Amino acid sequence: MHKASKSAKTVSKAAGAKSSLQAIKGGKAAGKPAAAKPVPPADDDAPIIALNLPMAKFSPAMAAYFKKCQDKLGFIPNVLVAYAFDMAKLEAFVAMYNDLMLGESGLTKLEREMIAVAVSSQNRCYYCLAAHGVAVRQYSGNPLLGEQIVMNYRAARLTKRQRAMLDFAVKLTAQPWGVEDADRERLRRAGFSDRDIWDIATIAGFFNMSNRVASATDMRPNPAYHGQAR
Amino acid sequence: MHKASKSAKTVSKAAGAKSSLQAIKGGKAAGKPAAAKPVPPADDDAPIIALNLPMAKFSPAMAAYFKKCQDKLGFIPNVLVAYAFDMAKLEAFVAMYNDLMLGESGLTKLEREMIAVAVSSQNRCYYCLAAHGVAVRQYSGNPLLGEQIVMNYRAARLTKRQRAMLDFAVKLTAQPWGVEDADRERLRRAGFSDRDIWDIATIAGFFNMSNRVASATDMRPNPAYHGQAR
Amino acid sequence: MHKASKSAKTVSKAAGAKSSLQAIKGGKAAGKPAAAKPVPPADDDAPIIALNLPMAKFSPAMAAYFKKCQDKLGFIPNVLVAYAFDMAKLEAFVAMYNDLMLGESGLTKLEREMIAVAVSSQNRCYYCLAAHGVAVRQYSGNPLLGEQIVMNYRAARLTKRQRAMLDFAVKLTAQPWGVEDADRERLRRAGFSDRDIWDIATIAGFFNMSNRVASATDMRPNPAYHGQAR
Amino acid sequence: MHKASKSAKTVSKAAGAKSSLQAIKGGKAAGKPAAAKPVPPADDDAPIIALNLPMAKFSPAMAAYFKKCQDKLGFIPNVLVAYAFDMAKLEAFVAMYNDLMLGESGLTKLEREMIAVAVSSQNRCYYCLAAHGVAVRQYSGNPLLGEQIVMNYRAARLTKRQRAMLDFAVKLTAQPWGVEDADRERLRRAGFSDRDIWDIATIAGFFNMSNRVASATDMRPNPAYHGQAR
Amino acid sequence: MHKASKSAKTVSKAAGAKSSLQAIKGGKAAGKPAAAKPVPPADDDAPIIALNLPMAKFSPAMAAYFKKCQDKLGFIPNVLVAYAFDMAKLEAFVAMYNDLMLGESGLTKLEREMIAVAVSSQNRCYYCLAAHGVAVRQYSGNPLLGEQIVMNYRAARLTKRQRAMLDFAVKLTAQPWGVEDADRERLRRAGFSDRDIWDIATIAGFFNMSNRVASATDMRPNPAYHGQAR
Amino acid sequence: MHKASKSAKTVSKAAGAKSSLQAIKGGKAAGKPAAAKPVPPADDDAPIIALNLPMAKFSPAMAAYFKKCQDKLGFIPNVLVAYAFDMAKLEAFVAMYNDLMLGESGLTKLEREMIAVAVSSQNRCYYCLAAHGVAVRQYSGNPLLGEQIVMNYRAARLTKRQRAMLDFAVKLTAQPWGVEDADRERLRRAGFSDRDIWDIATIAGFFNMSNRVASATDMRPNPAYHGQAR
Repeated sequence: MHKASKSAKTVSKAAGAKSSLQAIKGGKAAGKPAAAKPVPPADDDAPIIALNLPMAKFSPAMAAYFKKCQDKLGFIPNVLVAYAFDMAKLEAFVAMYNDLMLGESGLTKLEREMIAVAVSSQNRCYYCLAAHGVAVRQYSGNPLLGEQIVMNYRAARLTKRQRAMLDFAVKLTAQPWGVEDADRERLRRAGFSDRDIWDIATIAGFFNMSNRVASATDMRPNPAYHGQAR
Repeated sequence: MHKASKSAKTVSKAAGAKSSLQAIKGGKAAGKPAAAKPVPPADDDAPIIALNLPMAKFSPAMAAYFKKCQDKLGFIPNVLVAYAFDMAKLEAFVAMYNDLMLGESGLTKLEREMIAVAVSSQNRCYYCLAAHGVAVRQYSGNPLLGEQIVMNYRAARLTKRQRAMLDFAVKLTAQPWGVEDADRERLRRAGFSDRDIWDIATIAGFFNMSNRVASATDMRPNPAYHGQAR
Repeated sequence: MHKASKSAKTVSKAAGAKSSLQAIKGGKAAGKPAAAKPVPPADDDAPIIALNLPMAKFSPAMAAYFKKCQDKLGFIPNVLVAYAFDMAKLEAFVAMYNDLMLGESGLTKLEREMIAVAVSSQNRCYYCLAAHGVAVRQYSGNPLLGEQIVMNYRAARLTKRQRAMLDFAVKLTAQPWGVEDADRERLRRAGFSDRDIWDIATIAGFFNMSNRVASATDMRPNPAYHGQAR
Repeated sequence: MHKASKSAKTVSKAAGAKSSLQAIKGGKAAGKPAAAKPVPPADDDAPIIALNLPMAKFSPAMAAYFKKCQDKLGFIPNVLVAYAFDMAKLEAFVAMYNDLMLGESGLTKLEREMIAVAVSSQNRCYYCLAAHGVAVRQYSGNPLLGEQIVMNYRAARLTKRQRAMLDFAVKLTAQPWGVEDADRERLRRAGFSDRDIWDIATIAGFFNMSNRVASATDMRPNPAYHGQAR
Repeated sequence: MHKASKSAKTVSKAAGAKSSLQAIKGGKAAGKPAAAKPVPPADDDAPIIALNLPMAKFSPAMAAYFKKCQDKLGFIPNVLVAYAFDMAKLEAFVAMYNDLMLGESGLTKLEREMIAVAVSSQNRCYYCLAAHGVAVRQYSGNPLLGEQIVMNYRAARLTKRQRAMLDFAVKLTAQPWGVEDADRERLRRAGFSDRDIWDIATIAGFFNMSNRVASATDMRPNPAYHGQAR
Repeated sequence: MHKASKSAKTVSKAAGAKSSLQAIKGGKAAGKPAAAKPVPPADDDAPIIALNLPMAKFSPAMAAYFKKCQDKLGFIPNVLVAYAFDMAKLEAFVAMYNDLMLGESGLTKLEREMIAVAVSSQNRCYYCLAAHGVAVRQYSGNPLLGEQIVMNYRAARLTKRQRAMLDFAVKLTAQPWGVEDADRERLRRAGFSDRDIWDIATIAGFFNMSNRVASATDMRPNPAYHGQAR
């Protein structure tokens, strides 16, 4: 079992890390970094979140999941470290996230990440723009596309399908009370099934949740994101 | 095993219900209704959501959960029926919901429902205002309080603690990009711990998600809610 | 002449009521309550408005009008009590209100109340939503319709005529500077005459006034409204 | 009895005026113009409002009132002509207007007109800015003050009392749901009594109504206003 | 060389003017006033801007330009006096302004001033509304048109071309992120060339700059503007 | 003289470039690229702007300036190419830009670029965020700082001085009508002189202009920006 899971450490203090998990908490990835260039110097030694929450004893499932993240990404995304003060909350978050973003869907993974970024741009969420902007850059193989959706998705050269999808997600973010049948029809005319519409709605909804958790806690993205897939 | 779990039925068509679960889908509770007065005549025979999604085969856990809802409430909340086209999605939603709204927290259940309603009012979400307005009426024993938070939480006679909590949740809903240290400090001065702040943030975040899923799908609340705890 | 009209009492203090009019001021109706269920316990012993204005000597016309309200409704709507510090103001308000809401018009009384509630929802006015929400419930015989317009009129199953009417009233509320010929044409295409358009405009205008008077003074609705026509 | 009151004419067609009242309808004042310079050439021969409403038979009171306007101002304000299709509506409007703007109050007539203009500027109402901008110019003897409140009241050199009054009126216009005790306290600290606060609120409310009636009907101000008191 | 250019005077203090340029700084034009009526009494002896910036030594070009303004207008527009603390800044401003507003273009000078006023109205800029409102009154020979664009350009009787132009300029002001191909196409359908679109965009952009410089510095318009071309 | 200056070419078509200036127009830098990594593949072969404007004959000054840009940056910023259809416009733009961003000031070049990016983020301007985000990365030596200001400047770890400066610039962008003495005082308390306040205001104003010119014309940033100073 992962050593760090044995003791309750404070999530929001990254100083004096000793174990690899501790190292993760400051966002400085050890091991096999996925980033092509060296992690840029952090502008702040800020804690991951602005709340002082003691880290919980890890469940076996979550210890394994963190290890998998570390092996695959070279670091643990800070949002997971933030949730790790409570295993039930961490597990619920991970389950929902993985189902929405990695589970079966009529939407490609790139499309799902495009929704994540467009919603996060509307909400001006630093954490999610940093963490999901890189995913758009990676999945699309087009670094400029990632930047454009961070800045203003209307400036990107999108297909009609992509544009309809993001228009729906952004309207749902900015004026949820105004979404009606005509909006759903626009998606159907762009080729989306009812199941696809559900997925667009729930992914947009999920990032409206995550954006607010990140903003409410001043969550800091892992610095490694910045240089990836540029 | 629950009978309804054997066949995939369309969530969004409530006509011709035969089993008790089917009956639930139209929001007309059979069995032991918790409502003190007869369910008002529905103004619409609208489907639960505006998307046509075939109901999935129920997992044992979810079949048991639906039975428990039926026994306790006299009906299944429509949001659960809406998610029941996919067990992974339903389970993730139920896990997160139950942890946030019913799990251990420094916030009372009334306080959590007050957040749910204040956020849903900001987002003008019909489903969540109907379904959670009743919870505020019930937990507080004060029907007027429920109405006030539906209409404008600033009109309610709140304690300083309650007011600080709802001010934070509503700002986080309307302008998440503007939430900063000063906002967290205001909560701390009102007596909230860092863990409490996390809970306020994640509950507010959760309803920002649910409001959008409901608005995106035109989700209809069970008519039973309307007359309860008036 | 009405007894209460003989002495100037403070509108905004409801304590120690002795005459029937005094009783009215706290919103606790004596006599024949129209409400089917007992008035819910008030959550606040708040004065009717947050301004301390001594009640005026009643004119015969207004004394008779208050008596008529008491006999018919079982209470005097608090907005009338609030205006009763000055007979000229009360009479002007009553004349305009009765002409708009009860006078001859191509709009049904239900339609006029629907406008009142949709405008008040846009302005998040607690007093008017409580007092006119009940009217929509009563005139329509559909309690859910009243709730839907309080929460988000777009969620109600409206006829095309009703929807066009409320779209106009809400746009006129939120962006009066943007109402133009095309908006009037939309009403005409939905079957409204020019006189009907005048009525929609003036009713929407009236509640934009009343909402602001109520919000500016923290006007409290009579608790009796809450339980009526549920 | 006033001649024009004998026949129902269409308010919204100004062509071919023959009687003095007809002349009024186009906004071209006959008789003793109060304006120091010739009325500027109208840019439009637009009807007074965009609705076709036949003028009603005048009541004696309203015929006398129109005659008084004509004698005193040299023209009938178009808003009165617009309401003249129905005597009950005209009388209710006149009663409320005269009470608020000309009746007894702790606010000077200039202060009341300043509220009218600041509210109308927030709502960008062409009719009310034209018709009440002139009143601020006249009452203050300071043409620039009138222009400043039309354009942006924050640019005017106001006393603390005036500024507090307009801040309240404009917040009540833009965000009525957010007006609370602290806002009323700010007025009290600036020297306003509770009765003054009522007057500020009801005048601001009245112009929120009138602005919307004018915008909804494309009401055109009398051209004479433009050149007055420059 | 112009005398005033020899000494650095403070732009923002208008007291004790002795030379003609000093007189200009208080906005009180000497010489040949273009205004038809006497300059109205200033409501404030406010400095031209709220920043204390010593006036620079004039370059020959700018001294000549100020002299030309004085001869032609009877005063120096305060915006020029404000910029005169630094010749490089003044020259760059004058060059861009004169190119846009007076240089060759497919837009008439009236059209360019209409854009200036519509943009300044959206931004509620007192200085620019006063200084450019007069230009619309002058170029159009229609004082009401100037007022209408100050108050709400939608209330003016515009040609389709003018309306398309102002709709574009105002959208570009209020929601620049939302301007797209469809907006440009609307201009082309109204008869504008690509060069015309550039001119509309850069003039609207220029006043979005100037409005902000004026608001940031509390820039006061020359009182002479108020009475001109009424 | 520069060869390209001899013939009028269309700015908005980048195909078939032959001379080095033509090459510049597509944003593909030849010569000595400043970028550390290869220019990423453009996601679009879009023209620099969406308007078809024939390039003008270059003035000697502008030909020299373009050559200097090419030598120093390895490419010509597309905004300059866009303006190059008219030498008077190009020269006025360059003069104002260079004075504001590179001229003498109490603000460092980094501070000026921070204003540029914060304003452009508020206006969601793709061109300016791309072109000036890189400048913040370069001048600060902190790539994360550039990203943070692009995404939400409130998430950056700023000094009090920087924060006051950006708060002013962003308020001036979003609500110019609301900037008043209190806002200027906040800058003074943060250590800014009146001249500094002028510079903050005019730089914020300038980017409010440029953002709108870029959005109105769909201006595309040179792809080289993306990879620089990461």
